[in-house]
Amino acid sequence: MAGQEVSNKQVVLKDYVVGFPKESDMEFKTSKINLKLSEDSNGILLKNLYLSCDPYMRSRMTKHDRPTYVESFPIMGYGVSKVLDSRHPDYKAGDLVWGITGWEEYSLISSPQLFFKIEHTDVPLSYYTGILGMPGMTAYAGFYEVGSPKKGDRVFVSSASGAVGQLVGQLAKLNGCYVVGSAGSKEKVDLLKNKFGFDEAFNYKEEKDLDAALRRYFPEGIDIYFENVGGKMLEAVLSNMRLHGRIPTCGMISQYNLEQPEGVHNLFEIVAKRIRMEGFIVFDYYHLYPKYLEMILPHIREGKVSYVEDVAEGLESAPAALIGIYSGRNVGKQLVVVSRD
Amino acid sequence: MAGQEVSNKQVVLKDYVVGFPKESDMEFKTSKINLKLSEDSNGILLKNLYLSCDPYMRSRMTKHDRPTYVESFPIMGYGVSKVLDSRHPDYKAGDLVWGITGWEEYSLISSPQLFFKIEHTDVPLSYYTGILGMPGMTAYAGFYEVGSPKKGDRVFVSSASGAVGQLVGQLAKLNGCYVVGSAGSKEKVDLLKNKFGFDEAFNYKEEKDLDAALRRYFPEGIDIYFENVGGKMLEAVLSNMRLHGRIPTCGMISQYNLEQPEGVHNLFEIVAKRIRMEGFIVFDYYHLYPKYLEMILPHIREGKVSYVEDVAEGLESAPAALIGIYSGRNVGKQLVVVSRD
Repeated sequence: MAGQEVSNKQVVLKDYVVGFPKESDMEFKTSKINLKLSEDSNGILLKNLYLSCDPYMRSRMTKHDRPTYVESFPIMGYGVSKVLDSRHPDYKAGDLVWGITGWEEYSLISSPQLFFKIEHTDVPLSYYTGILGMPGMTAYAGFYEVGSPKKGDRVFVSSASGAVGQLVGQLAKLNGCYVVGSAGSKEKVDLLKNKFGFDEAFNYKEEKDLDAALRRYFPEGIDIYFENVGGKMLEAVLSNMRLHGRIPTCGMISQYNLEQPEGVHNLFEIVAKRIRMEGFIVFDYYHLYPKYLEMILPHIREGKVSYVEDVAEGLESAPAALIGIYSGRNVGKQLVVVSRD
Repeated sequence: MAGQEVSNKQVVLKDYVVGFPKESDMEFKTSKINLKLSEDSNGILLKNLYLSCDPYMRSRMTKHDRPTYVESFPIMGYGVSKVLDSRHPDYKAGDLVWGITGWEEYSLISSPQLFFKIEHTDVPLSYYTGILGMPGMTAYAGFYEVGSPKKGDRVFVSSASGAVGQLVGQLAKLNGCYVVGSAGSKEKVDLLKNKFGFDEAFNYKEEKDLDAALRRYFPEGIDIYFENVGGKMLEAVLSNMRLHGRIPTCGMISQYNLEQPEGVHNLFEIVAKRIRMEGFIVFDYYHLYPKYLEMILPHIREGKVSYVEDVAEGLESAPAALIGIYSGRNVGKQLVVVSRD
């Protein structure tokens, strides 16, 4: 019953990381893997096609003295994969799936129930690392379930051209909101205004006074801040929130590589303006995935929602691609193609 | 139709305050007031009996460049008063009321619809500055409506012997929660444990490491933090919250007198633990007041809920009483008796 044994290139974290991660924090290893599962397995064997680079991945590179929401080692992340062999009743060879896999050519998954089967392939398969995968669900759950949007709400999105932000802005427009985004380059700002239909956008790196920038775009204040960055931007936003404003708190990428995170000094605004600031994690909302697909797929097919990807070719390019997202080098959703089929 | 003109002693703020307020920031003035309303009035004329000293009052002593939730000048605050004359159909001479009045012997109120009529006088009248007034409703709304408590929840209350905190702890115990409070003296800690029935209590001034103190009392973490103080305590609490914890954010008294508020550096905990931090103001919940009275009055009458007051005698003592709450000099709810009838 022995199957074919092949070499399996992998990306491995060499050691825990302090500060900004570097390419040299990762290294390539090659092991062997048998493409046929043993008879006592209950798992699936995957060929990885697309790997997703997501900000949250920084967290599990840090040595924690307490448990956090991500704990794994070596590098694991969301990806789109093809099932080569299955001993699990829900999957068969040839199925396409997305879920948390390894940064390697082939992965043996012992808990395949955490994977989603891909049913719709008339849209780009890579979208299942982005708008049709975890980041898409994050935007949807954060905006609708945590943000409680109403028509006419004034919405601000930071990190707005990223995997999540570009969709939040478009959902907000579909919902009849006024939307402003911030990003870190002219090219990204142009995308926000011309491709994603944000009402306004600005380059936060060119604003000496974020508070003044927000006052310019939100003279009457912000109803919903979709929080991706934390730190000084959060502080400026708090000063510009409206009464009963909501802050779905998705991430704080500006803080992940700092040894001492920045302090936020004006949290009293939360009392004065009755603000609800609520952290959320997409895991808690995956039961809504079918409902989300039903809503978003027609918009994608009809071109009413756009999605911009930044595609790195080959597993060899994965470390640089991952590191790039912490300095904003990517334009749009960063992903890595391991293989196109 | 001219009525009796009498002298009216008042407490006035001399100028905006920076840093900790001092007695010398206030002064006494005496004016004249006619105890009979003019015929074209739609207001009520009050004799003030009890005045309430509340932390939020610090805010309107500061000169703001933007509107905040409290704006008035000279000193105004919650109080219990007797109607001496009324030109408003809802009130008549002899009624007892509570609401926002002036720090003076007699007040002319032009918008009396904001006052609550006192119907139950078998309990101490001064309670309407505390457990039966704004602080009581604050505890009730914050704990039940914002905190979403469940039986068995682990609850932490800061400023726990104060006007709001002492009641939050008792409501939490009635609700089957485990409750720990912090306060600033041994006397207060004893009250929390022996009078209010908290499971545990500690003196935050004697804890060098607040994080370690909280870990000691909450080895499995905190479900609900009723936030009254902000700053370093909030930072320590965030590190000790449990998944899906809630932080009803009532006030941040530790920050009110700082020229530069402290920074909170670990807001990422809000994401990692899916915490909901929500500011609230009692105004938004006054429609629940009848329901609250119906619940709390029997508990008070049966002695199942206690309430400790710190009573200053005479309007002359009001400035010192107000200033004392910012250094924690009061033990229990601070109020001032202007007149007992």
